[in-house]
Amino acid sequence: MNMTPTVKAILDTYESDNPGVKANLARMLMHGNLGGTGKLIILPVDQGFEHGPARSFAVNPPAYDPHYHFQLAIDAGLNAYAAPLGMIEAGADTFAGQIPTILKLNSSNSWATAKDQALTGGVDDALRLGCAAIGFTIYPGSDHFFELVEEIKELRAEAQAAGLATVIWSYPRGGELSKEGETALDVAAYAAHMAAEIGAHIIKVKLPSAHIEQKEARNVYEGADWSNQADRVRHVVQSSFAGRRIVIFSGGAAKDADSVYQDARDIRDGGGFGSIIGRNSFQRPREEALAMLARLQRIYKGEE
Amino acid sequence: MNMTPTVKAILDTYESDNPGVKANLARMLMHGNLGGTGKLIILPVDQGFEHGPARSFAVNPPAYDPHYHFQLAIDAGLNAYAAPLGMIEAGADTFAGQIPTILKLNSSNSWATAKDQALTGGVDDALRLGCAAIGFTIYPGSDHFFELVEEIKELRAEAQAAGLATVIWSYPRGGELSKEGETALDVAAYAAHMAAEIGAHIIKVKLPSAHIEQKEARNVYEGADWSNQADRVRHVVQSSFAGRRIVIFSGGAAKDADSVYQDARDIRDGGGFGSIIGRNSFQRPREEALAMLARLQRIYKGEE
Amino acid sequence: MNMTPTVKAILDTYESDNPGVKANLARMLMHGNLGGTGKLIILPVDQGFEHGPARSFAVNPPAYDPHYHFQLAIDAGLNAYAAPLGMIEAGADTFAGQIPTILKLNSSNSWATAKDQALTGGVDDALRLGCAAIGFTIYPGSDHFFELVEEIKELRAEAQAAGLATVIWSYPRGGELSKEGETALDVAAYAAHMAAEIGAHIIKVKLPSAHIEQKEARNVYEGADWSNQADRVRHVVQSSFAGRRIVIFSGGAAKDADSVYQDARDIRDGGGFGSIIGRNSFQRPREEALAMLARLQRIYKGEE
Amino acid sequence: MNMTPTVKAILDTYESDNPGVKANLARMLMHGNLGGTGKLIILPVDQGFEHGPARSFAVNPPAYDPHYHFQLAIDAGLNAYAAPLGMIEAGADTFAGQIPTILKLNSSNSWATAKDQALTGGVDDALRLGCAAIGFTIYPGSDHFFELVEEIKELRAEAQAAGLATVIWSYPRGGELSKEGETALDVAAYAAHMAAEIGAHIIKVKLPSAHIEQKEARNVYEGADWSNQADRVRHVVQSSFAGRRIVIFSGGAAKDADSVYQDARDIRDGGGFGSIIGRNSFQRPREEALAMLARLQRIYKGEE
Amino acid sequence: MNMTPTVKAILDTYESDNPGVKANLARMLMHGNLGGTGKLIILPVDQGFEHGPARSFAVNPPAYDPHYHFQLAIDAGLNAYAAPLGMIEAGADTFAGQIPTILKLNSSNSWATAKDQALTGGVDDALRLGCAAIGFTIYPGSDHFFELVEEIKELRAEAQAAGLATVIWSYPRGGELSKEGETALDVAAYAAHMAAEIGAHIIKVKLPSAHIEQKEARNVYEGADWSNQADRVRHVVQSSFAGRRIVIFSGGAAKDADSVYQDARDIRDGGGFGSIIGRNSFQRPREEALAMLARLQRIYKGEE
Repeated sequence: MNMTPTVKAILDTYESDNPGVKANLARMLMHGNLGGTGKLIILPVDQGFEHGPARSFAVNPPAYDPHYHFQLAIDAGLNAYAAPLGMIEAGADTFAGQIPTILKLNSSNSWATAKDQALTGGVDDALRLGCAAIGFTIYPGSDHFFELVEEIKELRAEAQAAGLATVIWSYPRGGELSKEGETALDVAAYAAHMAAEIGAHIIKVKLPSAHIEQKEARNVYEGADWSNQADRVRHVVQSSFAGRRIVIFSGGAAKDADSVYQDARDIRDGGGFGSIIGRNSFQRPREEALAMLARLQRIYKGEE
Repeated sequence: MNMTPTVKAILDTYESDNPGVKANLARMLMHGNLGGTGKLIILPVDQGFEHGPARSFAVNPPAYDPHYHFQLAIDAGLNAYAAPLGMIEAGADTFAGQIPTILKLNSSNSWATAKDQALTGGVDDALRLGCAAIGFTIYPGSDHFFELVEEIKELRAEAQAAGLATVIWSYPRGGELSKEGETALDVAAYAAHMAAEIGAHIIKVKLPSAHIEQKEARNVYEGADWSNQADRVRHVVQSSFAGRRIVIFSGGAAKDADSVYQDARDIRDGGGFGSIIGRNSFQRPREEALAMLARLQRIYKGEE
Repeated sequence: MNMTPTVKAILDTYESDNPGVKANLARMLMHGNLGGTGKLIILPVDQGFEHGPARSFAVNPPAYDPHYHFQLAIDAGLNAYAAPLGMIEAGADTFAGQIPTILKLNSSNSWATAKDQALTGGVDDALRLGCAAIGFTIYPGSDHFFELVEEIKELRAEAQAAGLATVIWSYPRGGELSKEGETALDVAAYAAHMAAEIGAHIIKVKLPSAHIEQKEARNVYEGADWSNQADRVRHVVQSSFAGRRIVIFSGGAAKDADSVYQDARDIRDGGGFGSIIGRNSFQRPREEALAMLARLQRIYKGEE
Repeated sequence: MNMTPTVKAILDTYESDNPGVKANLARMLMHGNLGGTGKLIILPVDQGFEHGPARSFAVNPPAYDPHYHFQLAIDAGLNAYAAPLGMIEAGADTFAGQIPTILKLNSSNSWATAKDQALTGGVDDALRLGCAAIGFTIYPGSDHFFELVEEIKELRAEAQAAGLATVIWSYPRGGELSKEGETALDVAAYAAHMAAEIGAHIIKVKLPSAHIEQKEARNVYEGADWSNQADRVRHVVQSSFAGRRIVIFSGGAAKDADSVYQDARDIRDGGGFGSIIGRNSFQRPREEALAMLARLQRIYKGEE
Repeated sequence: MNMTPTVKAILDTYESDNPGVKANLARMLMHGNLGGTGKLIILPVDQGFEHGPARSFAVNPPAYDPHYHFQLAIDAGLNAYAAPLGMIEAGADTFAGQIPTILKLNSSNSWATAKDQALTGGVDDALRLGCAAIGFTIYPGSDHFFELVEEIKELRAEAQAAGLATVIWSYPRGGELSKEGETALDVAAYAAHMAAEIGAHIIKVKLPSAHIEQKEARNVYEGADWSNQADRVRHVVQSSFAGRRIVIFSGGAAKDADSVYQDARDIRDGGGFGSIIGRNSFQRPREEALAMLARLQRIYKGEE
């Protein structure tokens, strides 16, 4: 498919990046059924690591096999597939050249005693495995936030020089943030902004609620009506350099299909760039997941 | 012996690894009495370091001599012998080329105040000592887990580039895990999965009990009958990339021979790849140990 | 514009610096409407990172866009624009060569649990982005002060060798300092002096109050009348190597315009080198901000 | 487009390469009008450097502009575009992500006094410019051959580790080779084989004549009928690891269209993998070149 | 002065360069009396090194002093000043920030027995001396050409990463080139093209004669009328990526003023980007030189 003006315009906002990074952003933006639209759906599969294999895959046992996810992402015409080292290595040769991949460089797990993540891969791994980008999680608010920032600073610089894009999962938690605050609107916008400040090419946050967490921020948000999810999405995108950075949203735990569709419509209507959708796809039977992903693509294309 | 289709099929699952790593996996899989069957029995001798020499060897004094273990593994026709630096250095010349060896790179001890391990060897040691693989212990759940992961990340990358395989001992402990939970089914499956995610070529876990430790995981396991050990083995193998990674099991402290045999039958019937069997072999008199290991090999061959 | 004797005299005080550092100091001192006067007004925009995007930009929504700030600094004829990595990358190509930039290398945020900052960029970033200087915040008084000092020691040496100037934000906080003490006269003077000691080419402190924080320092300050802000400015400049280092002052949160003008008159009359003015410029509507900055420039020129 | 069995089978022959190299080979094999067929047409534009700009571009002046060639390769639906550093840098941003590129790392020129080439770029350039492969010319027979081999040995290792493919232009010349011998069948086959031996992923040679140059080789070739060009192509492919390496052919100086088409038919019928076609495309008017390249694609697809 | 559309359009052609390189190109293009016009006049003073001090400076003895040249370039409002290490070091502090400088990294001399140059400075020198660019001479045609190319390949990469521009003096000589051929039209065009291919940001060649040197190139040039110098300039610019690279011209030895003016008119009319003018300026008395340079600037502005 030829480069579209929409995608070209997005690439142009990454104005200080070298052609290698732009080419890898283009690989993701031009791939799959949404290729060329400027929208993305990415399949992330790090839940086995983060929550354990049974909690992640028992509901749909073929998903224990790493090949299942590569094939699902390919068959669904998604833009990219993201996973940690072991999952990528287990399929990177079989599926070489078939879908852009994002190597998730750090991971946590259910038993972690600190709000931190451990590095499990590097930029050299991403290159030898043919990935288009590195992925990295930060926990704004956590006591470990500064360490995580300094880790991604080094990794991003190395990746950028080698022409790889950087995707940052920005998940506020820890410190004085309440549980409800982790998905508060002001918190999500701030988390997205910090990811942009440290140089993310693609920012991944959770869809925010209408809750406002920070006392100091309340008067800024008061008076406006934040009940519409599309408006909240718009605010997060605005907070990410006024749309100069790709922001995609996750919906969290598996839920009913209609909620997933409504989320996508809100992301689209609020000017978001797409969805990163893990459990809601691979925890459904394959045919059901393919149907859902196809419908999400139609929604992002504005067809329904 | 010629490469068998069974072993070739196992090697093919390591699809992103270079021929050097595959050749070293093949060295282990094609060696000894189980060579070519796709099953392995490995002799590990780090108990002197971990529990003290007398607790480990007094019951069978010839075992104080490192040569004893090399010779036992060779005479028993095992697939490989694993030990820390000193133990390997003490026999690597005499037995050069006679049995694949695994250099255990980190070790703990009885007096350790932290659930951590100390590095005692490196990839360069493994190369100069002619080893087929490096070995490394992680403690999922421990406060030191992230540090251990970041250590093995570096070591594995170095080993892989040099064509060495990586064997990870994944032993959950610490944090909020109960003592019973350390061998719980859900915990063992998760521990094996994490080892696969961080890139283990061979994963070593303990045979799991039917206990389920994690509250969040309970509903996933409920309703199924986990009383059969073979089923539990099958679940751990499934959790290790659906059988795309070699998983071997240890039986723990020395016990009666029949239990050891039954464990092997369950590992075999559950699709496990074999046993790593230390105290149950070297703490028995040599002839008795040889007889037991021969019988285990017959079990793995399906002959009894 | 030709080099002025005033600027030449300032450059001469940096007598151990190489021509590269001096040329970059000159770039800032000779640029914009105050070019050649020896005075500077710098626009800093790290508030999105430090306080969150909505608290910083909602009052003037065009300011969510990084280009807004580059353009504001250029159109206002300021001497330089300072921001963290992401903000600079988002406009460095479009505005290349149009205004000297300062890459802020470390940042904190509202949720930080420690009085510390995280590195988000390096000297190599400053060079590839065409910056004239690096910026760095230290927190004298904080438990993390020594670490921050050792970080800037390394960065400053690297920057200096590459001909980049170093701007240090010196913000006392933490330890036994009271809240009121953070802007105390003795504390501000001490903070500026420490920045000079660690090699800052440009020192940025807050305008000090007349409060004296340190018991041990009280008798030194007693007897003098510190009620005049210009006198306090003079003392801070005196404490920064008797005027041999450029010291600029910030006014803190947005306030009424007359206070901003009075601050500038006091800085000027006390021998300060200028203002770093963020929220008081970009949180006003653009036209109002341009008018205020133009008036500040007239004040620094002694025209009103 | 989905990966085809034909391309997958080609990728499988690069069995010791990491997924990164395979993904980049796949990028070229799956791109453009021949994507998926296992055939390639590549546009190389190093003639400005090798022969001078006027001799290369005066016949079709728009071709002086580096953008012309990127656009030609894209509009013609070619598989890749190859050029030296300057030519790639002059268009890599505008055309990022639109066509796989090959960075030619060394170049000679008309005035060279030695049969050698100078390095003008590196693997780091290829990465930052988003290239799929590096290109390198060797001169088997030249006094400088060993130096060239040792250069590409280092570059190939660095490229391979970073997941980039290596394309080797193998041009026999110098030493005791006659002018006629440079394109002799035995010489071309030998040159292709040497490129395979030093690790080329893609080998580029000239279409060989029926001449046999080496006395020692004559009796091997005697008795067979080498008058059919397709047979000669088949022999070169056979000499390149029996078809396990992609071999593409150049036709040399511009010539009449029918000869170009016949060459392509012979390459196809002899089992060659495609054409690298420079002067015969960009020295024709654009519309004529597009028509010729479209016809060549039909020939490679077996449609005429 | 604000960035002009003319200069912005030139910067945009350096599309793969980072903002640092563009900012330094902008510094030169926006400086001095021609600032913003897209035209440059640069003062180069390496003749003392290349031809000896007396031959260079005796005719105008104040020119023995390095400060003379800095001051001349500043007072004449030139765009930049280029010289080797010693000459730059002797004035870089005094004139810091007053004029963009180009550190000439290699030099030859009258006694050289080879057509080669020796390195006398590095990129780190250029940075610590506050230069906007590095300068480097290549001798296309010389036996040492390949070595020179490989030297500048490394230096250019280092400079580019640090945000410095690269100026290449491309002087054909040696090998089979005749003396007349060194300034032949075909040779100058080829020399400029090679500089572009190896990544020059600014190319410096001599004004070419109408002579055609290369037999193989003759038929390309025949039939056209090359008697007009502006047409020859246009061809050299066209050969330098169709105007995507800045090409400036030197006039060689000192000559009468009218010839110098006519050269400038021809460079301007042929689309050249300006003059690099050494002996014709500093070998004249200062006032005469200033007058000549002022007139040249008026010519480039199209005012006469």
